[in-house]
Amino acid sequence: MSATTPFGEFDLIGRIRARAAMRSDVVLGIGDDAAILRLPANRELVVAMDTLNAGVHFPADAHAADIGWKALAVNLSDLAAMGAEPAWCTLSLSLPDANSGWIDAFLDGFDALAHLHGVALVGGDTTRGPLSISVTAHGFVQPGRAMRRSGASAGDDVWVTGTLGDAAAALALRGIGTHAQLPRLGRVDASGDAAARAVLETRLARPAPRIDISRELAVFATACIDISDGLLADLGHVSLASAVEMSIDADALPASRSLVAWFDAGARRDLQLSGGDDYELAFTAPPSARDAVCAIADANGTELARIGRVTQGSGVRVVDSRGEAIAVTGHGYQHFA
Amino acid sequence: MSATTPFGEFDLIGRIRARAAMRSDVVLGIGDDAAILRLPANRELVVAMDTLNAGVHFPADAHAADIGWKALAVNLSDLAAMGAEPAWCTLSLSLPDANSGWIDAFLDGFDALAHLHGVALVGGDTTRGPLSISVTAHGFVQPGRAMRRSGASAGDDVWVTGTLGDAAAALALRGIGTHAQLPRLGRVDASGDAAARAVLETRLARPAPRIDISRELAVFATACIDISDGLLADLGHVSLASAVEMSIDADALPASRSLVAWFDAGARRDLQLSGGDDYELAFTAPPSARDAVCAIADANGTELARIGRVTQGSGVRVVDSRGEAIAVTGHGYQHFA
Repeated sequence: MSATTPFGEFDLIGRIRARAAMRSDVVLGIGDDAAILRLPANRELVVAMDTLNAGVHFPADAHAADIGWKALAVNLSDLAAMGAEPAWCTLSLSLPDANSGWIDAFLDGFDALAHLHGVALVGGDTTRGPLSISVTAHGFVQPGRAMRRSGASAGDDVWVTGTLGDAAAALALRGIGTHAQLPRLGRVDASGDAAARAVLETRLARPAPRIDISRELAVFATACIDISDGLLADLGHVSLASAVEMSIDADALPASRSLVAWFDAGARRDLQLSGGDDYELAFTAPPSARDAVCAIADANGTELARIGRVTQGSGVRVVDSRGEAIAVTGHGYQHFA
Repeated sequence: MSATTPFGEFDLIGRIRARAAMRSDVVLGIGDDAAILRLPANRELVVAMDTLNAGVHFPADAHAADIGWKALAVNLSDLAAMGAEPAWCTLSLSLPDANSGWIDAFLDGFDALAHLHGVALVGGDTTRGPLSISVTAHGFVQPGRAMRRSGASAGDDVWVTGTLGDAAAALALRGIGTHAQLPRLGRVDASGDAAARAVLETRLARPAPRIDISRELAVFATACIDISDGLLADLGHVSLASAVEMSIDADALPASRSLVAWFDAGARRDLQLSGGDDYELAFTAPPSARDAVCAIADANGTELARIGRVTQGSGVRVVDSRGEAIAVTGHGYQHFA
């Protein structure tokens, strides 16, 4: 009768099970000790696992549907970084109490994204504890075709999908995080500002993993990474894994109109270089692939920006339009820093 | 220099990575956005995911090595319930702070069990948050050969591995949980009592998943379940999934000598029927398999006790030696009850 009906764990599992999508390769889904799954012939299995904790990865009062969406999105983004086709996931949900309204809203967000990418929820766990969501996502790649961090070589271009800094901008506008003190533009068009801010908030709350385009990019890309920890930090991982230097043109970093509406060029640069949570991809590809990459961008209606090149050396170097280095090593968000 | 050295997330991942076992079917392990794994030909994938939260599944001051062991054990027990061969796992570790001594001890326990069963840790996540450990375990079965909860039929015997009630007894002796008020035997042999209690504590802290024997049992068993929520509750799941009644002989429930040392017959029965956390298996098999099951028990040095039979009907019925029903429906531990 109430939106806050306590119920047993088995009812909760039944609730989740009743809503879970099916796939023909799920031999046995939710409801036994483990799931049984059938991998297609001639495919490698790709597995990613990420956890979101209340108060760390989202505010404790975030919308349940947004939390559900994001808990799956951050994992699908990891599969996207490999160029994998997503298939199945498991969900472990720790809840301080069982609130059926909250859980239904959570599943609304989770299932919406799962449906979008044909992902079946096949098992997991529900338990009492501080609000925390762990997801393990499973996908496929053709043998040897996954993108890794380690394949970049000198001469490659560096690309990013979409626009950078939007999610960090949303946090900054809330006064949260390392960019909270960045100066904001004074604006006269208040309604336009509100609309722009809403766009930034959506980028933070409902990141869109680059699943579809990444599978096309995998044909050309030599290395790829999900830049959810911030561009500099994550390019640093590619640099290390590939034993190369990443040389980035600060003026080539793609900015959304919403970001431009709220922050000047200097502030934008900070957000684009070190802001995380955008769940875009950075990838490298040889110059010979430029036309093909642009064709993929056009066909998908997705912005793909060439932001630099791979050189011999180590680390990440950011240069401005005069070729002067404005940052040599970047540090993104380290959870235990 | 200190046992409590704070360090960045990437150092923590490096620490975990350096210790992780390898397998030849791990194409890419810890250190990229996702792991890449090679499933053997003609095998189905079996996936289980369970979370342990401090203060819910273990006391906040439990030994880190025991927590590490148990976090993997509860997942391997789910694979055992399916008769699967374990292969890989991912680990998500939420920690309030980064204490290198704690983490090393945690990994000592985790790795010890992983090594025992040839399981490779291939990825996961480390993040800040209340102490919580999620593990996803992956294994294989021959197509169509996994044990499920749904295969029991009238006429089958009901069996359990090992002994029942030991872990719940350890909790009761600590004064924790639903059995804390059970009367204890007065004993004169104090050193014997201490040794018996230590056995019970080990059963709680270091459960041994029945991986090896379960793969042999899968040849004969018609249904199987991990009875970690308590015998009655978990047989209830088999009853429901198989649409049968489970008729259990209370006097046939296997008790360890340590349990007998501490609790009288009445208290033991409570612990054996409704105590969880033993991570033993209950399974059903036709009477024609009795000799084969006993041969498996002998070959493995594992106690396998025949505790009842499957009949037409529904629910779980426990009868005493005079055939009188002493419980008709049992309720084990429901996390949100």
